[in-house]
Amino acid sequence: MRRSRRGDVDAFIVMDMVEEARQLEAAGRHIIHMEVGQPGTGAPLGARKALAAALDQPLGYTVSLGLPELRAGISQLYRRWYGVELNPDRVVVTAGSSAAFILAFSALFDAGDRVALGEPGYPSYRQILRAMSLEPVGIAAALENRLQPVPADLEGVEMQGLIVASPGNPSGTMLDHGHLKALIDHCAARGISFVSDEIYHGLHYGDRAVSALEITDDAYVINSFSKYFSMTGWRIGWMVVPETHIRTVERLAQNLFICPPHASQVAALAALDCIDELEANRATYAENRRLMLEGLPKAGFTKIAPPDGAFYIYADVSDLTGDSLALSREILHGAGVAVTPGLDFDPVRGARTLRFSYARATADIAEGLARLQTFMAQRGR
Amino acid sequence: MRRSRRGDVDAFIVMDMVEEARQLEAAGRHIIHMEVGQPGTGAPLGARKALAAALDQPLGYTVSLGLPELRAGISQLYRRWYGVELNPDRVVVTAGSSAAFILAFSALFDAGDRVALGEPGYPSYRQILRAMSLEPVGIAAALENRLQPVPADLEGVEMQGLIVASPGNPSGTMLDHGHLKALIDHCAARGISFVSDEIYHGLHYGDRAVSALEITDDAYVINSFSKYFSMTGWRIGWMVVPETHIRTVERLAQNLFICPPHASQVAALAALDCIDELEANRATYAENRRLMLEGLPKAGFTKIAPPDGAFYIYADVSDLTGDSLALSREILHGAGVAVTPGLDFDPVRGARTLRFSYARATADIAEGLARLQTFMAQRGR
Repeated sequence: MRRSRRGDVDAFIVMDMVEEARQLEAAGRHIIHMEVGQPGTGAPLGARKALAAALDQPLGYTVSLGLPELRAGISQLYRRWYGVELNPDRVVVTAGSSAAFILAFSALFDAGDRVALGEPGYPSYRQILRAMSLEPVGIAAALENRLQPVPADLEGVEMQGLIVASPGNPSGTMLDHGHLKALIDHCAARGISFVSDEIYHGLHYGDRAVSALEITDDAYVINSFSKYFSMTGWRIGWMVVPETHIRTVERLAQNLFICPPHASQVAALAALDCIDELEANRATYAENRRLMLEGLPKAGFTKIAPPDGAFYIYADVSDLTGDSLALSREILHGAGVAVTPGLDFDPVRGARTLRFSYARATADIAEGLARLQTFMAQRGR
Repeated sequence: MRRSRRGDVDAFIVMDMVEEARQLEAAGRHIIHMEVGQPGTGAPLGARKALAAALDQPLGYTVSLGLPELRAGISQLYRRWYGVELNPDRVVVTAGSSAAFILAFSALFDAGDRVALGEPGYPSYRQILRAMSLEPVGIAAALENRLQPVPADLEGVEMQGLIVASPGNPSGTMLDHGHLKALIDHCAARGISFVSDEIYHGLHYGDRAVSALEITDDAYVINSFSKYFSMTGWRIGWMVVPETHIRTVERLAQNLFICPPHASQVAALAALDCIDELEANRATYAENRRLMLEGLPKAGFTKIAPPDGAFYIYADVSDLTGDSLALSREILHGAGVAVTPGLDFDPVRGARTLRFSYARATADIAEGLARLQTFMAQRGR
């Protein structure tokens, strides 16, 4: 049976690490997981209770754009977090940010269009674009710009769209109001569609992140209940679109997805109110981050920048290796700590970087750091 | 902000009916719903109990192809239903059949490829194809072939893929082993990728439906927990792919969806064992079908073919109208019964057809038929 060219997307390299870690665990080895991009916590208690109470209802299809009360709740979150008044009609509930990207790219771009993304960045942007016959255009972000793109990087590059993530994955760095506005203005002046991935909003350790909606209504803003709300496996997220695009996105959502998972919508609606539990999670990440910034240099990972948000530290390991995958394997087998080689995030420079996630319990982070220190000392760096 | 050409898909006409029915209900009117393609029942009790018991677990991401025990359970269903031995590695759990179609079309077809589908048929095939820059090719199925395509219909038509649904929506008619094999052979001889939509399998009122997997391993077979398993809003389904395509589809699933909803996977696994409750649902549909076949002709809908499966009756109303949308509105407002004009299923001949769904409770069906008979008698047909 024939296969398409666009279906030939790259494998996640991290998946090989996940699989190797799984095999070691199956063989009885204890592994500390610093490779995974998901919280160690589950959905907040209030969310699980709300779903338990709803399980005697049929939970059939909802309307395609999502339960009206959930869309209203999300619009209120914009007032709470940013002081932005948002028309709930502009909120599209989606099956995670994944479905939001598919809807956004369908609504905005035609086959062959070029869509730029900063590198290092979330690897699936590139693969989703390819699978939809779009051309990803990698923009190498500079260390002096804290690994975020700036307008000068985009100058003269042909593109129909730009995806920006703040806080970024793997860097954890943010674009402040001025830098985000500079990118938005650059795009607006050139008819480039602006897609703002705000999936790590809520997880900040200094100033809060700035939403594109504080600057313009002429953007697609994508977010999710996976990270701050700790609901990865529930596949529930949302997208805010310009008013003039609502009908287009609604028709696409009706046909491509029918509706987001109903049970997850019920849980997500309740999660919006679980502020104490979610802020306690954030305090855990803050403590984990403190331990990481203190402990990683002691293990020899000295070239790290303190992240503004999310739950990752991206380390330059060029003084240790030119093959981050081999180093990751060495660390997994030698230290019993799973980490992510940078290759998924940056095909070019990622051979000299590692990503450490600190989303798990603090005790695990402390144990992982101790293992890394012991192992790297033995290794002689 | 720019908009894509491919994002400009058609609206579902039935959605206008759903919205008009909702407005009437909001104004206090009682409406019988024969327009919706979902069971009146919720997920089986065993499925809901299994999820309730799992709600104290984190329910994070699963592996992209789905929980191994669910994939094994689905492969066992092929033994139970068809006597087919199926390697569970070939089973891809998806966020409903919707996600399965996106994965299938990404893996099989490149932008500009032509994919044929029988008309009348599920309207979203056409729109998903368009949104993915593929060209839908409508094949008008003949009444004498019970509204299913036959090889002669495909002769000389350029296509890279063919989608077939048995039982079909809206017709409810099935392809028997010989007719299904004829289509599969036609495609195999011409390098046309064969996609078999088997979403209504399990819902039959005479002989069971034949799966493409009884005939070939060289097909994409798509199914769902939405219909027989009564779990529409859970967005959980599956796809069976050829062994040589597993890795391609896995990479696409990792990037496009990460994983199907975890909670829905837990519920679906338990649903596989809820045979008594699901067979009781089927007995309800069988009784509803009997009432419909008896009652619709009394209301003047005489040109109907007894459906083999699913829960729809597709009526030729050319003796009553040339504008099925207007007739649907008239019936909604006059009789308080919501039905679906055929236009979504067949852009050409659908102006002279209606689809009646009998998926709801038997008492509703009886009441709906009584209303239709009274109204149509007053209308003078």
